[in-house]
Amino acid sequence: MAKKIKTIGVMTGGGDCPGLNAVIRAVAKTAITEHNLNVVGIHDGFLGLIENNLTPLSYDDVSGILTRGGTILGSSNKANPNKFAVEVNGVKKFKNVSRQCVKHAKDAGIEAIVCIGGDGTMSGAAGMVKHGLDFIGVPKTIDNDLWGTDVTFGFDTAVTTATEAVDKIHTTAASHSRVMIVEVMGRYAGWIALHAGVAGGADIILMPEMPYQLDKICKYIEQRKAYGRNYTIIVAAEGAKCKGGQMVVHKVDKFSPDPIRLGGVANKIAADIEAAAGIDCRATVLGHVQRGGMPSPHDRTLATVFGHFALEQLVAGKRNRVVVMKNNELTTVALSQVANKVRTVPKNYRLVKAAKAVGTSFGI
Amino acid sequence: MAKKIKTIGVMTGGGDCPGLNAVIRAVAKTAITEHNLNVVGIHDGFLGLIENNLTPLSYDDVSGILTRGGTILGSSNKANPNKFAVEVNGVKKFKNVSRQCVKHAKDAGIEAIVCIGGDGTMSGAAGMVKHGLDFIGVPKTIDNDLWGTDVTFGFDTAVTTATEAVDKIHTTAASHSRVMIVEVMGRYAGWIALHAGVAGGADIILMPEMPYQLDKICKYIEQRKAYGRNYTIIVAAEGAKCKGGQMVVHKVDKFSPDPIRLGGVANKIAADIEAAAGIDCRATVLGHVQRGGMPSPHDRTLATVFGHFALEQLVAGKRNRVVVMKNNELTTVALSQVANKVRTVPKNYRLVKAAKAVGTSFGI
Amino acid sequence: MAKKIKTIGVMTGGGDCPGLNAVIRAVAKTAITEHNLNVVGIHDGFLGLIENNLTPLSYDDVSGILTRGGTILGSSNKANPNKFAVEVNGVKKFKNVSRQCVKHAKDAGIEAIVCIGGDGTMSGAAGMVKHGLDFIGVPKTIDNDLWGTDVTFGFDTAVTTATEAVDKIHTTAASHSRVMIVEVMGRYAGWIALHAGVAGGADIILMPEMPYQLDKICKYIEQRKAYGRNYTIIVAAEGAKCKGGQMVVHKVDKFSPDPIRLGGVANKIAADIEAAAGIDCRATVLGHVQRGGMPSPHDRTLATVFGHFALEQLVAGKRNRVVVMKNNELTTVALSQVANKVRTVPKNYRLVKAAKAVGTSFGI
Amino acid sequence: MAKKIKTIGVMTGGGDCPGLNAVIRAVAKTAITEHNLNVVGIHDGFLGLIENNLTPLSYDDVSGILTRGGTILGSSNKANPNKFAVEVNGVKKFKNVSRQCVKHAKDAGIEAIVCIGGDGTMSGAAGMVKHGLDFIGVPKTIDNDLWGTDVTFGFDTAVTTATEAVDKIHTTAASHSRVMIVEVMGRYAGWIALHAGVAGGADIILMPEMPYQLDKICKYIEQRKAYGRNYTIIVAAEGAKCKGGQMVVHKVDKFSPDPIRLGGVANKIAADIEAAAGIDCRATVLGHVQRGGMPSPHDRTLATVFGHFALEQLVAGKRNRVVVMKNNELTTVALSQVANKVRTVPKNYRLVKAAKAVGTSFGI
Repeated sequence: MAKKIKTIGVMTGGGDCPGLNAVIRAVAKTAITEHNLNVVGIHDGFLGLIENNLTPLSYDDVSGILTRGGTILGSSNKANPNKFAVEVNGVKKFKNVSRQCVKHAKDAGIEAIVCIGGDGTMSGAAGMVKHGLDFIGVPKTIDNDLWGTDVTFGFDTAVTTATEAVDKIHTTAASHSRVMIVEVMGRYAGWIALHAGVAGGADIILMPEMPYQLDKICKYIEQRKAYGRNYTIIVAAEGAKCKGGQMVVHKVDKFSPDPIRLGGVANKIAADIEAAAGIDCRATVLGHVQRGGMPSPHDRTLATVFGHFALEQLVAGKRNRVVVMKNNELTTVALSQVANKVRTVPKNYRLVKAAKAVGTSFGI
Repeated sequence: MAKKIKTIGVMTGGGDCPGLNAVIRAVAKTAITEHNLNVVGIHDGFLGLIENNLTPLSYDDVSGILTRGGTILGSSNKANPNKFAVEVNGVKKFKNVSRQCVKHAKDAGIEAIVCIGGDGTMSGAAGMVKHGLDFIGVPKTIDNDLWGTDVTFGFDTAVTTATEAVDKIHTTAASHSRVMIVEVMGRYAGWIALHAGVAGGADIILMPEMPYQLDKICKYIEQRKAYGRNYTIIVAAEGAKCKGGQMVVHKVDKFSPDPIRLGGVANKIAADIEAAAGIDCRATVLGHVQRGGMPSPHDRTLATVFGHFALEQLVAGKRNRVVVMKNNELTTVALSQVANKVRTVPKNYRLVKAAKAVGTSFGI
Repeated sequence: MAKKIKTIGVMTGGGDCPGLNAVIRAVAKTAITEHNLNVVGIHDGFLGLIENNLTPLSYDDVSGILTRGGTILGSSNKANPNKFAVEVNGVKKFKNVSRQCVKHAKDAGIEAIVCIGGDGTMSGAAGMVKHGLDFIGVPKTIDNDLWGTDVTFGFDTAVTTATEAVDKIHTTAASHSRVMIVEVMGRYAGWIALHAGVAGGADIILMPEMPYQLDKICKYIEQRKAYGRNYTIIVAAEGAKCKGGQMVVHKVDKFSPDPIRLGGVANKIAADIEAAAGIDCRATVLGHVQRGGMPSPHDRTLATVFGHFALEQLVAGKRNRVVVMKNNELTTVALSQVANKVRTVPKNYRLVKAAKAVGTSFGI
Repeated sequence: MAKKIKTIGVMTGGGDCPGLNAVIRAVAKTAITEHNLNVVGIHDGFLGLIENNLTPLSYDDVSGILTRGGTILGSSNKANPNKFAVEVNGVKKFKNVSRQCVKHAKDAGIEAIVCIGGDGTMSGAAGMVKHGLDFIGVPKTIDNDLWGTDVTFGFDTAVTTATEAVDKIHTTAASHSRVMIVEVMGRYAGWIALHAGVAGGADIILMPEMPYQLDKICKYIEQRKAYGRNYTIIVAAEGAKCKGGQMVVHKVDKFSPDPIRLGGVANKIAADIEAAAGIDCRATVLGHVQRGGMPSPHDRTLATVFGHFALEQLVAGKRNRVVVMKNNELTTVALSQVANKVRTVPKNYRLVKAAKAVGTSFGI
């Protein structure tokens, strides 16, 4: 049987994701009411461990946060303890500050940390394990591309936001006989594009997993016109790329003098279609709104279940494993397995097949 | 290999459910574009078969309906071919009109019907199989209580609508220091109550599967007060009942001189709490709004996948089976197995356990 | 010029209304940053004055509350200082506790109170003026029926919630060929019924201002059938009544053994239509959800403008007046004028005329 | 008294706007049921008149379109009859085709046209008046900047969409301690930025009417940090410009090799803030989603009222006037007055004053 523990930590790392607070709440409430544990909140991701920014979390602290977007603990996607930027004698260097993190955690009495984060955060946690700090991971990504789990909280909310945008774009496209491209998140996997595309009734869906051919896209648009459909909606993942081509290196959310980076793949495709086929084409880049806002009811329950299960695993003595949902069952996989892997959309995935059958083109 | 078929029928039976049109669209588009089949739309559920109200469905007929609530085919929950009310010489009688249905279907060249419906519709279909008409069923219930499948389209939309109501009730309860009861659908199973309750942060959830005790509810409300929480939100399934008691026989949507039937279980519980504990208590009965409106993005994709898979099963020669999602895999179960069964919430279901851990009472 | 004041109070009275927090925030922020005033929050409406439950409000206290429903100050619709229920020697009596309220306010240094409330709250405030306490009123009613102002915050949110319900009911009505009645708030005036009815495309709208005739309603339903429209949506204000009849005395939100009170007017009309015309008819009573939730963007800006203007009037030396919007201009009317009056929908109001022109019946 | 007319036309010009279908419906239903007129639908704005693309509209044609975004008549913002691009002997020329438009209208028996459009469409209509075709204008702009009217349909929906985006951005900004800029529509007037900014609780609002100073923005961000507010939300109209500077010439929706045009003003400001103050800053450009989707309940009723009133004015014999709402009253102004004018936000507008009082900076 597991040794009785007294104090746990909880932290959120990486980008914003709807449902983070729901997980924090489930972890802390379960710890306090079911197991009489002390809960320590770690602020701003690993930065809180590095800078010793830790505060106790009471039951009241986590009450009323279920429906709130963001994270009450703050987050950071710059602070990797294995490679932390410090200035020594005016010179910038990278330093492994894991030992320091472990010390701060131990000083606060933390025996294990529920660490809610994505690929990068799990990788950071895995690096600290060998220094003697233990974790239970909760997978977090709106992109739904974390390896080892069929589903992650935040994804349903992001798909809902993206689908609402596609729904709105539909009326403009139809009224103006245009080609409209909506760029959604998904740098390495097309889950959001696929789901929001099918849900929004997109005519063409472009994903990193299935490199498109420009002539196929143009031909499909022409074919639609021949059938009296004088508009076309394209949903493109930000990581969509043409066959044999590279991913358009862009950062939607960051200014840059480089036009391609600025506009993202949607603007590039719009330009390419206009150049190739002389068709009027407009792009909309959704960006950050997909990460924000209240979690959907689906994500609130999923986050609650993940948070509760994570804490129970921790109490049961499990260490350095990540909570996952696999074939509709909650289970865990090793932390080291999850780090640095991406779960992409299989080419014969049921929703891909269904999308094709209802007439959606993947530009291939 | 399956004999090549030429014509299929499609029908929707039972109560309204968001996503019906998405299934119809997926079935018809797949049939037309992938398999070059003729599709016949059957109007108003089995009534269309009984009265021979059948019309061909073209690709254009099912275009643009993905996001629309309701069903373009109409529905009916009164027409059971095995027991159809007819008037013979001024006397009302029940008659089995299955043979007549089969004849109408055969005359239209229909070789098999994709039948989208719940428990009752599946039972009606099963009755017609012995008369020589074949079906592929697609499970439909906002209650999510159909046997054999882990999830049904329409459920996520219903939960979303119910959760939004609970979210709204929250502010009033908190501002006025009240007990508020929200009654949601679920006559035999508490899936909606459980999911909307957890997602909405309800303090108490009442479900048919876990008969409540009034004193436990009152005690819990008092306990909250002692902790400075001067309001309580209760989410109750319409089929909630007290321990040892009966389900409150009511029809939310139908006028009746009987006060209990009128008000439903929520009003009964409100009265009981007031009488037992002298606490101010208000009830809201959500009713029909849970069935209506645009399907959520989740339900649009699920309905599309179900519709596509159903048609593929039909083409592959499968007959009289129902499409289900089991452990995240699409498969089928026998039509006869699904009829007249209810899938209830297991007492140790992961969301029940998580709900308890975050402090939710089930009144037990 | 107005004497420089140092301290103001702010309170919310009566039922919950989206936008209350937005007003509190605008009042307090304007007072603190523009005029360097102290702000005292009065809890639970007049109850806070009676029981001396007053606390200072800082800038931080009112930050981040703009979008939250409910009121951070709490409210009460039972505490009328002019007629407050007290127990003296075991006997319940009504007592005028205004003097006591004034004393508590003066002791806290409050020179005038921004009082956000409806008809009843304004009446309570008017009663205290003669005891030496001054007020600036901000009109609050989701019903939009306060005399003297063209518009009140909360109304747009309530109409939005009601319209969303009508939108959802539409698909069920159409799929099942039914008459559906949606009961919305509005005991004395039909503003919500009118706006949600027109916005939701209701076929019949019933309001207290225009008593309906049952035969006209039935005839209209039949007429629609003759034109192939086999369903009808009715939106009824809770105060709707038949010609020559009385308002159905009911409390939607309160249990009662009396069936009519339980069900409200919608259930009565449904029963009457079924009895008179044999048409299948279902009722939905929206209830409390109309009061709750996040204020709409429209109501957030309106509430902000009202709060800011109220504080500026107070600082400018105005007393015992209510802030109103009249012909798109902000102005004030005397507190005494507003109390105990209702603003009803004029029979020739532009939206009534437009509704008739697009085919809506008022059952007359 | 006005001569009895028999046939009217209805058209929609310019960009997409939520509520167009609601106006078309109100115009056509009023014409048909109240005045027994024939209604002719003109397709794709003036293009329908130029190319004689006219079809009769029946009552059924305009049923069920109230809540649909876009326009069933289609629109075009390229076809100006006063200056229409034609190819003569292979050479592109501009030609005044007004006479041809008038002929097509007269041939169809059209005596006057209800013309729903913005500034540009009104200008086109005004040009045709001298050729003998009469109009009643209905103002259409999501930007709310049409001269002569206090409010236009579509604006509330656009503000709602923009506010929802700001709400979502809030959680990300707070979780990551960032400056986030949301760019909303409004090339010449800041109405959307002002309303969505106040409703979304933006810290800084930038509008064309009040040219900003970069150092004031940076100073304000620093000031917030000093008060412990480590994030800042900026809402910027696309026409926002710095003091003494020019509007950033950009087209959000059109690809261009020019990086500044691509990214719009939000990206420019983000870059400027980063360069000036070294603060991490992200931009989101909302774009087309603001034009699309279902109209809000507010816009549905407003559009219905405008459409009904326009038709009544036409029947009453009014010609070449535009329907407006002025001080909460419906009235008309001359068509020629509205063309080529913009209604900007007054510097002392009530919402500007209220915004300042609650702590919003305008960067000035």
